[in-house]
Amino acid sequence: MSSTLDEHWFTETFADEGSAFSLEITDKLLDVTSPYQHLEVYATRTYGNLMVLDGCVMLTERDNFLYHEMIAHPALFTHRDPRRVVIIGGGDCGTLREVLRHPGVEQVTQIDIDEEVTKAAERCFPALTESNDDPRAELRFADGVKWVEEAPEASIDVLIIDSTDPVGPAEGLFKVDFLARCQRILKDGGVLVQQSESPLYHSGSIIRELRRDMLEAGFDSVATLPFPQPVYPSGWWSVTLAGKGSNVSDFRETDADDLTGLEYYSAAIHRGALSLPPFMQRLLDS
Amino acid sequence: MSSTLDEHWFTETFADEGSAFSLEITDKLLDVTSPYQHLEVYATRTYGNLMVLDGCVMLTERDNFLYHEMIAHPALFTHRDPRRVVIIGGGDCGTLREVLRHPGVEQVTQIDIDEEVTKAAERCFPALTESNDDPRAELRFADGVKWVEEAPEASIDVLIIDSTDPVGPAEGLFKVDFLARCQRILKDGGVLVQQSESPLYHSGSIIRELRRDMLEAGFDSVATLPFPQPVYPSGWWSVTLAGKGSNVSDFRETDADDLTGLEYYSAAIHRGALSLPPFMQRLLDS
Repeated sequence: MSSTLDEHWFTETFADEGSAFSLEITDKLLDVTSPYQHLEVYATRTYGNLMVLDGCVMLTERDNFLYHEMIAHPALFTHRDPRRVVIIGGGDCGTLREVLRHPGVEQVTQIDIDEEVTKAAERCFPALTESNDDPRAELRFADGVKWVEEAPEASIDVLIIDSTDPVGPAEGLFKVDFLARCQRILKDGGVLVQQSESPLYHSGSIIRELRRDMLEAGFDSVATLPFPQPVYPSGWWSVTLAGKGSNVSDFRETDADDLTGLEYYSAAIHRGALSLPPFMQRLLDS
Repeated sequence: MSSTLDEHWFTETFADEGSAFSLEITDKLLDVTSPYQHLEVYATRTYGNLMVLDGCVMLTERDNFLYHEMIAHPALFTHRDPRRVVIIGGGDCGTLREVLRHPGVEQVTQIDIDEEVTKAAERCFPALTESNDDPRAELRFADGVKWVEEAPEASIDVLIIDSTDPVGPAEGLFKVDFLARCQRILKDGGVLVQQSESPLYHSGSIIRELRRDMLEAGFDSVATLPFPQPVYPSGWWSVTLAGKGSNVSDFRETDADDLTGLEYYSAAIHRGALSLPPFMQRLLDS
């Protein structure tokens, strides 16, 4: 007995992986074709609003806390004293909100190429944009690759690559040249973090290559942290950290313990995520 | 742009949760109606063979290691010296195989009501049944609820409830009366473990109620361990341990470190899984 899904469902098919994920939708709230991508927002029955870019699920109101907390807090607590933070991508502003929870952060610049994503977030995901008025936040709509190229050397503490998948507009963000430029603009002790796809699907491909590229680009240490993410392919996702003159397997545990009010991240979750399942470690080492 | 899935996909719809998961199938290998349930096995393009009971995905060759390692090893390494193990359900024999990796175990009895599940596993999931000839293994096909009722008091070290969801044939396995009978047949220091559904979907319902029922049934400690499971609802799953005269938040870390050859479980994964995400802890405490 295989169910069939009618027009009340949004389905994303992961063609290479032979799997698909669907959410029951009740309404279409937005349909915008920007110069960069096709953006849709749906109301779902159980996941709140859903943002879709070029047919790929980006986030839902219900479960985006997993991704946003895990792309922000491990990197920030790995850096000894993060003051100047840059987010490439991240137009929905959810990562920005998490970064701004760190009182020591003095300035956060978010550079997304597509202003329509931020407009859609303001309208349909208001919780994510609630910190946009923070005086420390700066929103720019520009090409992140170019921005990194032109940024002054050794000027940033934490650089967050909060991008879509390594195909389409974000392809340039997964290349060794780009990573080398990121390394250049980080200060000594700086930390880079990038979303790095599914531990089940991509440990022997995208994740392993990204880690190799990071080391080749001049970083001194790497660490991949898996976490659950129901709406992404396989329901299991990861971020990969890279350190410039620092060991990204260490972090400020006591400070992490003191940050309360989060949904997923904690010092113990961070510590746990640093230990990879054996199958993943074997694939990364092979 | 919402894709549509044709007859080359098997879809399980989680109606209450408004989500669905699909796998691309290439063949139907088995279709059996037993006295207890409807059993199907499909060949998939990327997940190996897939077993389905009453329309619900039970397991695939590709990712069952997550569930089977996590329902077996945390419980066995929590017990000080497990010799006598009983599995209720578990007809696919994957849990049995994991239990038999522990050299100290002297006898494992698996009691599944439906022999057709084991026959299907022998035919379509041969890796799971590879330890069935171990002289320590005993396979019985009988009503697990009744078996527990009739078993002698204080006769078992570890009791594993490897059941389907708490609806249909497995409903009786999620009741306080049944848990109290489980508690009775465990020796002092005994450990019970039960699959306990999705941290995202069920922390404030099934998981919280199960933990409450376990304590009400006379157990002295409980612990819920989340882990990824791509083919189950939300891609995120859990097991819950209960201890009779023992603290199930402690385990034999050194022994766990010594068990090699696994795919997901390790001492570090076990330790990490004992720290719940804050949202989950809040729901369990509320």
